[in-house]
Amino acid sequence: MEANQAMLLVSASEHDANMFYATRFFAPDNFIYLESTTERIVVIGNLELERAKEVARVDRVLPLMQYWKMAQEKHEKSPGTEEVVDVLLEDLGLSNVIVPPDFSVKFADGIRKYGHQVEVKAEPYFDRRLCKEDDEVEAVRQTVKHTQDAIGLAIEAIRNASIGDGDGDVLMVGGEPLTSEIIRHEMHTHLMANGCHTTHTTVSCGTASALPHEEGSGPLYANQSIVVDCSPRSRENGYWADMTRTVVRGKASPELRSQYEVVLEAQELAVGLAKPGANGKEIHSAVTEFMADRGYKTHVADGKPQGFFHALGHGIGVDAHERPRLAIRDEFLEVGNILALEPALYYTETGGIRIEDDILVTDDGAVALSTLPKDLEV
Amino acid sequence: MEANQAMLLVSASEHDANMFYATRFFAPDNFIYLESTTERIVVIGNLELERAKEVARVDRVLPLMQYWKMAQEKHEKSPGTEEVVDVLLEDLGLSNVIVPPDFSVKFADGIRKYGHQVEVKAEPYFDRRLCKEDDEVEAVRQTVKHTQDAIGLAIEAIRNASIGDGDGDVLMVGGEPLTSEIIRHEMHTHLMANGCHTTHTTVSCGTASALPHEEGSGPLYANQSIVVDCSPRSRENGYWADMTRTVVRGKASPELRSQYEVVLEAQELAVGLAKPGANGKEIHSAVTEFMADRGYKTHVADGKPQGFFHALGHGIGVDAHERPRLAIRDEFLEVGNILALEPALYYTETGGIRIEDDILVTDDGAVALSTLPKDLEV
Repeated sequence: MEANQAMLLVSASEHDANMFYATRFFAPDNFIYLESTTERIVVIGNLELERAKEVARVDRVLPLMQYWKMAQEKHEKSPGTEEVVDVLLEDLGLSNVIVPPDFSVKFADGIRKYGHQVEVKAEPYFDRRLCKEDDEVEAVRQTVKHTQDAIGLAIEAIRNASIGDGDGDVLMVGGEPLTSEIIRHEMHTHLMANGCHTTHTTVSCGTASALPHEEGSGPLYANQSIVVDCSPRSRENGYWADMTRTVVRGKASPELRSQYEVVLEAQELAVGLAKPGANGKEIHSAVTEFMADRGYKTHVADGKPQGFFHALGHGIGVDAHERPRLAIRDEFLEVGNILALEPALYYTETGGIRIEDDILVTDDGAVALSTLPKDLEV
Repeated sequence: MEANQAMLLVSASEHDANMFYATRFFAPDNFIYLESTTERIVVIGNLELERAKEVARVDRVLPLMQYWKMAQEKHEKSPGTEEVVDVLLEDLGLSNVIVPPDFSVKFADGIRKYGHQVEVKAEPYFDRRLCKEDDEVEAVRQTVKHTQDAIGLAIEAIRNASIGDGDGDVLMVGGEPLTSEIIRHEMHTHLMANGCHTTHTTVSCGTASALPHEEGSGPLYANQSIVVDCSPRSRENGYWADMTRTVVRGKASPELRSQYEVVLEAQELAVGLAKPGANGKEIHSAVTEFMADRGYKTHVADGKPQGFFHALGHGIGVDAHERPRLAIRDEFLEVGNILALEPALYYTETGGIRIEDDILVTDDGAVALSTLPKDLEV
């Protein structure tokens, strides 16, 4: 970055991971963040000014009102973000800005009109976001704890269910079928009570579990795979976790058991390969090939993808899915990456198996952040 | 719009209200929406293709893969959104696009590079979004029902609390103080069980209730105002509600009671003025003046704003806050607007009072969508 440049964000940190990362300060409405070669600045309205001064991890917090008035004077109109940024840059002796890909085209067009260059930097917009500091690792660890406790509750509910007779092995609790909805509600209640929120939690059974985007609904059954995937964010620390377990209440068929064992071994393979300098693409390929060699091919049957057809893994942090991705592009692992590794095998006939854990990449290889047991039958 | 133009969105409908509005289809990842003078089209990846065909309220759902391949061929590289939009426009005989203000500058720059004009349309991007159709009114009504039930639970909990002796009138339940957190958890559990989610729920008491952005924490007290504000979104229908009640457990001081009565009358005044053609700015002014005339002035004391210092109201729909706003700019009401009207008076000394209800603007004036009683003392 040059001395006349600044990184610029205009967004609400509750909705924009980069803004939260830059400031570690949650606010529901748009504010301005500027990072020059010498300092980090927040410019924000009066309603949030004091809280920002207390909480935001920046060098200075400036009142929006001051720049709004300067912009009104200079531009002789009721100023918008474009005019405020113009006078702000002028005041700070800066001329050009670097913005993330999702920066507003309206703001960019306006800022350019006032003679500033607006350069777009692809993600990772903040390179430093990929390598977690100790306090970030601790934050993910906390969210992981709540996540695995929630999945643990789900598994307990499945374990404690009785198996109905006469109604196709439906799982029963208190005389009623145990459903995806009941388990999801219990998990969400636990997460909420621990300051986490989430919108997508999968509790899917049997053929539904063979569709990775299917969240599941209705009664759960014995002797079939049940996929429980949970990815909440802590509202307190702002960091995500992402975990999955697959269980069977009763007896797994030999086919499902061996499918499970291959996914489990595939995950162990991935964890072993997750070292600084490793190429995510190569780890993804190694896992895919390992499973194919064991007889688990990826193909399409009746228009439905079968086998392993999503990315092996992705970074987690202030976003649920962030760099580096372990998929089909070259992306190299570094010390401090936190990764969700989620090998899986989906077959309409047997059902889906997915096992997902969160690990930290260190000089000595992967360190597990999640510790929930991985037993298939419960 | 000209025949060679199209409205273009590239976003995830779970995070972008315009995309949800355009398609009524929730998806977590980016997809493409194009609206020309003749048809509405979604272009989406294989994983969501079938679901989009079933659910999305558009004329055609096209496979992204097809355009991705065309883009790869034409541009001789691994195509991004910019290249896909380029070939899509060409294929559909279109040349220029109209995008919302928050459209990605990266996509806009790329699309312009391929010779297309990208025009930014200010909100409301879809003019039709402001005037709700019958099914939209019904959707808001459902969310309002769950919202007022949740607030009702909060009020019941406050009503059923006993008043501790010796500890400054703290409210007690089962030998423990009744806290903001306990009530918030009960409300959120109810909302979650009814398919709604929310992140900001205020349960604030006493001096904290005089800060409109303060969500509240810790024990609640008798004989002080308790503000309960809840604004959830239905995950099922995608529409928001926004309501507030203020209650006192025990006895309100004469000062607080008259402050409450003025806010209540102010809301009645606002509801009476909310007619097609009315100017939101004038309604806001009328309410502000009414309260000032009754002796409730707006000023700053010890750096803290006192009185009424936020907007009187705002539209609700697929967004929690949308046009029209009843604030300091000219914005005219139309039949089909759904408005949250929230007059309030905040004084550090007495506490805050806010009453917020959702109404529909019809030819015959405002129709209430919320029906929760408005009793101060409980």
